[in-house]
Amino acid sequence: MNAHGYTFGQPTLARSPVSLREFEEMKRSALFADEDIRFLRLSAEVVKDQLEAILDVWYGFIGSTPHLVAAFTSRAEGKPLVDYLEGVRRRFSHWILDTARAEYDQQWLDYQHEIALRHHRTKKNRTDGADATDIVPFRHLFAVIFPVTLTLKPFLASKGHSAKDVDKMYDAWLKSCLLQLTLWSHPFVKDGDF
Amino acid sequence: MNAHGYTFGQPTLARSPVSLREFEEMKRSALFADEDIRFLRLSAEVVKDQLEAILDVWYGFIGSTPHLVAAFTSRAEGKPLVDYLEGVRRRFSHWILDTARAEYDQQWLDYQHEIALRHHRTKKNRTDGADATDIVPFRHLFAVIFPVTLTLKPFLASKGHSAKDVDKMYDAWLKSCLLQLTLWSHPFVKDGDF
Repeated sequence: MNAHGYTFGQPTLARSPVSLREFEEMKRSALFADEDIRFLRLSAEVVKDQLEAILDVWYGFIGSTPHLVAAFTSRAEGKPLVDYLEGVRRRFSHWILDTARAEYDQQWLDYQHEIALRHHRTKKNRTDGADATDIVPFRHLFAVIFPVTLTLKPFLASKGHSAKDVDKMYDAWLKSCLLQLTLWSHPFVKDGDF
Repeated sequence: MNAHGYTFGQPTLARSPVSLREFEEMKRSALFADEDIRFLRLSAEVVKDQLEAILDVWYGFIGSTPHLVAAFTSRAEGKPLVDYLEGVRRRFSHWILDTARAEYDQQWLDYQHEIALRHHRTKKNRTDGADATDIVPFRHLFAVIFPVTLTLKPFLASKGHSAKDVDKMYDAWLKSCLLQLTLWSHPFVKDGDF
């Protein structure tokens, strides 16, 4: 069953301001090749029954880092919003699978833009009706790529693949995250500078 | 001898809009720890006599990627600007050593902001009096972290360090690049969103 607010593929989504042609260029800048698609899809097989364990690690990191948990903290009461954290976590689970599916079509691009808006003050909190801070500050967006991909590595290695293939899955995830976070930055970037 | 335009530490530099306290938080978001400083400094010993070979690889990548070389291309004549490419390359050499030195003080932060402005339309082309495109588009800034760090790895491994230590140097470089590119993004980001 889809998580609340997981609107991938819905016709109500706004069209991404980034074109598929621009995304192809971004892939080349990151040395993202067809091999990466293959290894992301291999990772889908590896992670699909480990989603909750992966999210436990990621949420453990966010939860123990005060300036990150701030994005999920009630402005009125100063406490973490459990329902908001849980709603985001269910969509995060879809995000893992979407990242591993690696199908870069217009629907995927449009949903990346929706995710972008939900990190930005444009749409943050709305999906979950949360009373939290109104933006995830840009300065933490890309930094978090490192903990997310580093802590994924043991999960990628847990199904008996060769060290070389685990490294290739890891590299593909790293590149995918660099590209996705770039897409998620669009609402933060000044007009004309993207 | 310092490269033209390498103004690290000069009192004429503007103060970074990012504070050292904010940078400390950014480091925590990236799991950047004291160990990373140690491994960056170890990498300084490894790369200091390989700078030109490293830059050959990086420039080979940029030069063979048309949408990246565009940032160094004459608007009037549509050809790569050799003097501009060479000026940036000499400063790039300093950047490698500064990254490996890993001394995060106000001077370092201020020079990161100067580098930021030189990628943005605020100050691009000025240092070298170049007639090139007026901005490095945001969408390629972070993507290039992957080729830069991937191609550095064989150089890090070339002086007989253990695979584990090479990995730790690589991880430290990756985190440092995520943090530096975030600092370089400041002029691209809307007021209040950084």
